[in-house]
Amino acid sequence: MISEAGAVTLAQLQAGLEDPLQEVREEIRRLIAADFDLISDVNAHLLQMQGKMFRPTLVFLVYHAVGAEDPRIVSLAAVVELIHLATLVHDDSVDHSVLRRGMPTVNALFSHQVSVIMGDYLYSRAVIELVRLSDLEPLRVLSRVTNEMTIGEMRQLLAHDRLKFTEEEYELLIRAKTASLVSGAAEVGALRASPAQRESMNRFGHYLGMAFQIVDDLLDFTGGEAVTGKPSGLDLREHKVTLPLIYALPRMNRTQRTRVVHLMETPEPPDGLIAEVVADIGAVGGLAYARERAHRFVALAEAELDALPPSPARETLRASLTYVLERRR
Amino acid sequence: MISEAGAVTLAQLQAGLEDPLQEVREEIRRLIAADFDLISDVNAHLLQMQGKMFRPTLVFLVYHAVGAEDPRIVSLAAVVELIHLATLVHDDSVDHSVLRRGMPTVNALFSHQVSVIMGDYLYSRAVIELVRLSDLEPLRVLSRVTNEMTIGEMRQLLAHDRLKFTEEEYELLIRAKTASLVSGAAEVGALRASPAQRESMNRFGHYLGMAFQIVDDLLDFTGGEAVTGKPSGLDLREHKVTLPLIYALPRMNRTQRTRVVHLMETPEPPDGLIAEVVADIGAVGGLAYARERAHRFVALAEAELDALPPSPARETLRASLTYVLERRR
Repeated sequence: MISEAGAVTLAQLQAGLEDPLQEVREEIRRLIAADFDLISDVNAHLLQMQGKMFRPTLVFLVYHAVGAEDPRIVSLAAVVELIHLATLVHDDSVDHSVLRRGMPTVNALFSHQVSVIMGDYLYSRAVIELVRLSDLEPLRVLSRVTNEMTIGEMRQLLAHDRLKFTEEEYELLIRAKTASLVSGAAEVGALRASPAQRESMNRFGHYLGMAFQIVDDLLDFTGGEAVTGKPSGLDLREHKVTLPLIYALPRMNRTQRTRVVHLMETPEPPDGLIAEVVADIGAVGGLAYARERAHRFVALAEAELDALPPSPARETLRASLTYVLERRR
Repeated sequence: MISEAGAVTLAQLQAGLEDPLQEVREEIRRLIAADFDLISDVNAHLLQMQGKMFRPTLVFLVYHAVGAEDPRIVSLAAVVELIHLATLVHDDSVDHSVLRRGMPTVNALFSHQVSVIMGDYLYSRAVIELVRLSDLEPLRVLSRVTNEMTIGEMRQLLAHDRLKFTEEEYELLIRAKTASLVSGAAEVGALRASPAQRESMNRFGHYLGMAFQIVDDLLDFTGGEAVTGKPSGLDLREHKVTLPLIYALPRMNRTQRTRVVHLMETPEPPDGLIAEVVADIGAVGGLAYARERAHRFVALAEAELDALPPSPARETLRASLTYVLERRR
């Protein structure tokens, strides 16, 4: 069972992985290097804003837990992170986001045009590297994932301003947008394991990714700017409909619901209105329900760990579930 | 030698290829099909605006000319056209173009956001299909091409408003933007041929693509709206610097050059100013020079045909060179 006791930090999950993660960073730098000033400038910026390396960490943890040698593992982890990076660049361009991880996005710092081209550049470099590894399996996994992510992005477009958005549609959205790549990362760590273990790790990643995104959407309601680096209720401000609101809406009274409709119809909703709606959603149980769903997905993920032999890496994978549930940003 | 006598039409090049080209169209329809309304809507629009199928035609002509059986040839031709399509969708989004082939672009008809995501969707479907063919060779060729095209797009960004743009930079630009995929198309038609023939076809496509783009840029100066479907001098209007201007600029007198600078500094240059600059460029030999360069590339392409045994398909490839030089749109 997942312990609720102590918070798990990402640094704890990455203990002992500092060297391979550093190799991944260097590999990414090598993979995206270009003999072209504008691209080098964007690369330098992207490398500066590099994230928490959650996906490469997952690749390595699964890799150690299944215990099947794979000399390509650093390259594979780098490609997974590179695909993630390419997706972020296009997402920010699509969403017209100006900040990511507290730094200006590529579209904000350079231009919308540069960010569209850069996303294509990064993704095609990832494919070139996968071809270089001379094995169709990782390509099979990651090309499917990439395509699914584009469908997730389309679903995301339709999740704006749509109070009819259902929980089922929400799950299809986060599955495509987030869980697919987390699932791909876990599977890629197990490419040389038995088919049964590989499938278990694919499902483990899927459930973990579902919980990850639900918590992410929850943090948007509960985490203040000091914690998450972005103002609370940003999704509502941008009229993005996520699970707490989906659950809350049919349980609201007329006054509360009118307030939500009003918020969705207001192009730049004021902070006071957002705070009221956040409170309403909490009052009818929207936040508690989303938390419960995240726990449910984590339990499903944990069950998949039974496919692995006991090992310290397996226990770290278990701890990663607590991390996903309890993280504050 | 290339005959200058009669104009060659695309229909002549495609004679006998009607059935396989129709199969390619159906294959593309199958490859991009989605169980998602918004994507289906965009797909329907894209299939309606489908182009001249120049690249698949080239795949088939090379395929027949090398004479090496390849049961995947329809799929390969479809993937080449699909990659071309994905590129056009992103190009139009980057350029904020509103019309393509006389129809609204995806960014104009749907939105900028949809076009960024759709380009990614189409490209990842192409990769999935290449993986399905279970051969790394076409993936190796086409992933390199795709990456090169993104670098070409970056170069294109820098070719705006830059009167210092050199002929060398222009050639790097059109090589990456256009010749790379034409070269990839020709190589993909020869994947089962001897390495020497495959390399010859790669070079044939490269030279053909270089000539193709130079003529395209020339047509922007010489073809009226009735012929090309777009107003004459559109590149100048958008401050795009192409070969005729690059050649002409150092050969202009002070008055002419001042006019060019003025045009480049005017956000929406009037038709009269554009017409004057077009006339100036012609007067100092810019158009003639670009035509001469296109002829030179065509001659280089023709020399590569010597690597092929005599056949009707080889002669159609030769005729395709005349088509590229003499086409009016």
